[in-house]
Amino acid sequence: MQEIRVYREIHGVNEEWAEKNRLLLAEHNVVMLNIIGSPGSGKTSLLEAASDRLSQSLKFAVLEGDVETTRDAERLHALNVPVSQLITGNACHLNAKLVHAGLSDLDLENLDLVIVENVGNLLCPSQFDIGETAKIAVLSVTEGEDKPIKYPLLFREASAVVLTKTDLLAYLPFNLDSCLGYIRQVNNEIPIFQVSATTGAGVDEWLDWVVKMRKR
Amino acid sequence: MQEIRVYREIHGVNEEWAEKNRLLLAEHNVVMLNIIGSPGSGKTSLLEAASDRLSQSLKFAVLEGDVETTRDAERLHALNVPVSQLITGNACHLNAKLVHAGLSDLDLENLDLVIVENVGNLLCPSQFDIGETAKIAVLSVTEGEDKPIKYPLLFREASAVVLTKTDLLAYLPFNLDSCLGYIRQVNNEIPIFQVSATTGAGVDEWLDWVVKMRKR
Repeated sequence: MQEIRVYREIHGVNEEWAEKNRLLLAEHNVVMLNIIGSPGSGKTSLLEAASDRLSQSLKFAVLEGDVETTRDAERLHALNVPVSQLITGNACHLNAKLVHAGLSDLDLENLDLVIVENVGNLLCPSQFDIGETAKIAVLSVTEGEDKPIKYPLLFREASAVVLTKTDLLAYLPFNLDSCLGYIRQVNNEIPIFQVSATTGAGVDEWLDWVVKMRKR
Repeated sequence: MQEIRVYREIHGVNEEWAEKNRLLLAEHNVVMLNIIGSPGSGKTSLLEAASDRLSQSLKFAVLEGDVETTRDAERLHALNVPVSQLITGNACHLNAKLVHAGLSDLDLENLDLVIVENVGNLLCPSQFDIGETAKIAVLSVTEGEDKPIKYPLLFREASAVVLTKTDLLAYLPFNLDSCLGYIRQVNNEIPIFQVSATTGAGVDEWLDWVVKMRKR
């Protein structure tokens, strides 16, 4: 029987830069994680809570994506995390070319891992390949349990979910089992880490997963 | 001295539909409010908390914008709010044409107000005119105080800010004065309503503002 030919859309220039990023990372054996979540979902706080312990296992750097300001980069810089800021202007997501600019200036030969914190947005960043090894979905329990089915694309594409701000569960009308069920409904196999950056609960479990991503 | 000529970008088709919406609303003397905020910032909960009292002052309907699902519309329908669902597919914002479809099916002659709840996204919806009378920025205190300067466009363009989930302030490292200062830094004159949909605090003050928008 004749083979079915599959043609896939190339999103022009962005895909080309994403491919360049993948080659650059492969050449230096560096893993790149693309962290995506709503504004205020706790992406930077997660990195703050994890940076000390992560630096004991891996050599890593962070690329901070934001529409404006260098505030998030400053927060990590204060913790001695090597960090660059990527400013998108009005763009609602990081593109692969801007990430390439940040990557190219890193000393990749001496790194194991690059963590990209994307622009705060549960929608658009999922649609733009930056050449990452894996996407991580960050969802805070304050956002409500139904977000995985209301914004399924990210949860479908991600390789892990980090459910943040679990220290606030006692004060919220948040049904944890429903939320886990909604995530499973969209992506049945995905690992889910329940984390509080404030108390540190669950951070180690997530970091074990991150370290394993590098050692695959 | 010669006058400076100003040329403004017309965003093609979207602007044309936005203009149609404005004409349609003006013809029936209906005000349209465009509510914008992150996923889980409390936009639907605000409408749930306000619907009863609002219906005592004005005849209103809601257009619910979402990427997928009719969940938010169902929440309001359960409270007897007249509501239609606008599904954007993968689009991260409502466009004016889709809003026009929703508007055209409403009995505008018997309405004072249409409330549009945009897709959960602090960025993109601000960039797309839907022909609204005013934009309302919804920010929850769980998102952190710096969001107005990190995502300034919406706060610059909005006519009011609703700061939600204030019942959680006691459990958060959230500096209210800083947040108010950041909002003022972007938009010095804007009214700010501190609201808890859970306790009902502040809802009346916001509704007074909404009713005044109709009676201008």
